[in-house]
Amino acid sequence: MAQNVYDNPEFFEGYRQLPRQVHGLDGAPEWPVVRAMLPDMKGLRAVDLGCGFGWVSRWMRENGAASVLGLDLSENMIARARATTTDAAIEYRIADLDALDLPARSFEVAFSALTFHYVADFGRLVRAIGRALVPGGHLVFTIEHPVYMAAAGATWQADAAGTPVWPVSGYSREGERRTDWFAKGVLKHHRTIATTVNTLIDAGFAIARLGEFAPTPEQVAARPGLACEIERPMFLMVAARLAGRPD
Amino acid sequence: MAQNVYDNPEFFEGYRQLPRQVHGLDGAPEWPVVRAMLPDMKGLRAVDLGCGFGWVSRWMRENGAASVLGLDLSENMIARARATTTDAAIEYRIADLDALDLPARSFEVAFSALTFHYVADFGRLVRAIGRALVPGGHLVFTIEHPVYMAAAGATWQADAAGTPVWPVSGYSREGERRTDWFAKGVLKHHRTIATTVNTLIDAGFAIARLGEFAPTPEQVAARPGLACEIERPMFLMVAARLAGRPD
Repeated sequence: MAQNVYDNPEFFEGYRQLPRQVHGLDGAPEWPVVRAMLPDMKGLRAVDLGCGFGWVSRWMRENGAASVLGLDLSENMIARARATTTDAAIEYRIADLDALDLPARSFEVAFSALTFHYVADFGRLVRAIGRALVPGGHLVFTIEHPVYMAAAGATWQADAAGTPVWPVSGYSREGERRTDWFAKGVLKHHRTIATTVNTLIDAGFAIARLGEFAPTPEQVAARPGLACEIERPMFLMVAARLAGRPD
Repeated sequence: MAQNVYDNPEFFEGYRQLPRQVHGLDGAPEWPVVRAMLPDMKGLRAVDLGCGFGWVSRWMRENGAASVLGLDLSENMIARARATTTDAAIEYRIADLDALDLPARSFEVAFSALTFHYVADFGRLVRAIGRALVPGGHLVFTIEHPVYMAAAGATWQADAAGTPVWPVSGYSREGERRTDWFAKGVLKHHRTIATTVNTLIDAGFAIARLGEFAPTPEQVAARPGLACEIERPMFLMVAARLAGRPD
């Protein structure tokens, strides 16, 4: 079972105050890029893997999805997500992505935001998603970028000119990373970009788009703290399609 | 026209003494991964873009390619490549990849080693390659990894524990990078991984495999200087296939 840090009260107290939890999708600067990777949701059945408070699940329904299944390991998250909607076409359920088991060929879209880096066996996960999608189905997800994750506990340095510099080490050493983020020893799993992409291809997906988050000048003007995110990629965004023609 | 540093005598004198130029493919530690990305060469027509001394062009013929066209901007390179073979099925020719113009649907394989990061307009280049390949044709190439290239002039640092750390900055700032490598101000063009992959997809290629070079324990034992390459990805390797069924 994946580590469930989200039900640690100390962690949750910090986490729920993040801009993206207070302001929702408007507080997630990578959202415009992610949104552009998603298909037209009209009439599609979607699963939101690691749905958290359900911001994207609700956005999908507001944009025409026929149904959304939001899954999260955290009771805190699911309780709060359920409290935000009375929409009978959104179902929130507690589930462990390390043991994901969905009905076959039941979704046109699988989505996940900043969750897959908590999953130990990425190959198992994407094969389970592949079975749950219809042929031609869409998988769109974001993870912490491997460059950001490689050196656990890394902090910004400055070069001789004072430019922020991000230290990378252990990039090719895949496996567990422990970091302190609202709680001590949060467990993540580092995989290279090549492993991430090749695992998808081996599971029958075609890569449709990659994204690496960088803030726009407008975003930096509005949130100057984002400026350093130009220097290193913080999030990796992937759009992939399952092989085969849609039914 | 691309900068032709390879015909700078000072540069060439240093360059020709690199392990990979003295020992050929055995001196290129990423070659086993690259070789595994190439198709069975038997009967295929190949173009080697930035062929240098022709190591890979000759390997392709030794492994059954019907013909190989080796292109390089440098007269030094092409003269030396020509001097290494009397094989009439290998042609070496001076050409600028910034203005690449090949006959349509004439190759089953396009290959390039550590050259595309010198090309300013990657989109133009891959569209030209796409026209030159038959449907289903293979494009396999290596470039300096964007993580390695992002901070021009970066050098290894050490963290508090003495581990080698590679400083990344300017990752999302694409464009020219000037570095001193056997000569002053060698001009390269930095692009993110996302741009590299998306440009290929937009030109009609499907991503077949990504690789990020890391030395094996055996390679580190034989060449201890390679150990640091576990810490950061130095080369990006890409295998892609042009859409469409082979004729």
